[in-house]
Amino acid sequence: MPKASSFPIIQVIGYKNSGKTTMVNRLIRYASDHNIKTASLKHHGHQDSLTPIHAGTDSYTHKESGAFITGVEGGGSLQLEFGEDIDVSLDQLIKIYESFSPGLLVVEGYKQEVHPKIVMIRKEADLELITTVSNIKAIIRWNAQLENPSEDIPVFELEHIDDHLAELIYLCKEV
Amino acid sequence: MPKASSFPIIQVIGYKNSGKTTMVNRLIRYASDHNIKTASLKHHGHQDSLTPIHAGTDSYTHKESGAFITGVEGGGSLQLEFGEDIDVSLDQLIKIYESFSPGLLVVEGYKQEVHPKIVMIRKEADLELITTVSNIKAIIRWNAQLENPSEDIPVFELEHIDDHLAELIYLCKEV
Repeated sequence: MPKASSFPIIQVIGYKNSGKTTMVNRLIRYASDHNIKTASLKHHGHQDSLTPIHAGTDSYTHKESGAFITGVEGGGSLQLEFGEDIDVSLDQLIKIYESFSPGLLVVEGYKQEVHPKIVMIRKEADLELITTVSNIKAIIRWNAQLENPSEDIPVFELEHIDDHLAELIYLCKEV
Repeated sequence: MPKASSFPIIQVIGYKNSGKTTMVNRLIRYASDHNIKTASLKHHGHQDSLTPIHAGTDSYTHKESGAFITGVEGGGSLQLEFGEDIDVSLDQLIKIYESFSPGLLVVEGYKQEVHPKIVMIRKEADLELITTVSNIKAIIRWNAQLENPSEDIPVFELEHIDDHLAELIYLCKEV
């Protein structure tokens, strides 16, 4: 069961090029337009790290000096870098967001996490994803010809999704 | 009075090229070598913002879609970007660090903040800084020929500072 947080969390997951970012943006736009303070978080994956920050050299020397977390804040942006031994969990990131009291957090990725999920299904082969993740609240398929992916999970067609954004957010609400 | 936090905070402040970063690194190195989980935060200033992250385009579309905070996590790094209307206070940043329970936070910059401060004094003209900031616990001067900057604040000579790191950290401890 997901750890209860003080705000709703929606995970948008799916394989590469299944339209996750576009879907996240639609949800953010809809919620923001309805005056919900909406935050987003994207899992960039561990294979390649983020581009060093402008003032990076300093924060790197801090790291080399032994700091387990180094941060640089400026120009409306904060970058934190964590020591190799620190594995930052989504729960910790959610705690960070909590301090800014959002009304909604839309998360892109983190397939294996436990929060309410919208799964993007582009092609037949993607259907397998549904059997491997937890807490799916809605499935969005690109192609109505695709076999019905699930008996008991609401399925939406991508082409009409803009008419169902409120419903999607509602389905994912757990708080 | 500084807001009490669960861990000591040391601010290293000074004008440009007064040796802030070097001093911060010495403190981090010393504390880490003594098994204190040390975190660092550098104020990069609002004039120029941090380099966009690798996966920036996505997080920018999130922002354009109306997200008031967008984040990208990956490769042991987290970058948060805040909407124009959000002014992130040092207190909020400290709250973020708190979630990783550090033993010490060394902050570079944030002159106007309230936490215990070490002030770097390189030249005569820098002395003015001492009169404009609060909660100074120690002064480090580059040149012993400089007039004694303060009656009641401990003054250290930069050339011997490595013998006084424990003392500096002790002087700044408020928790």
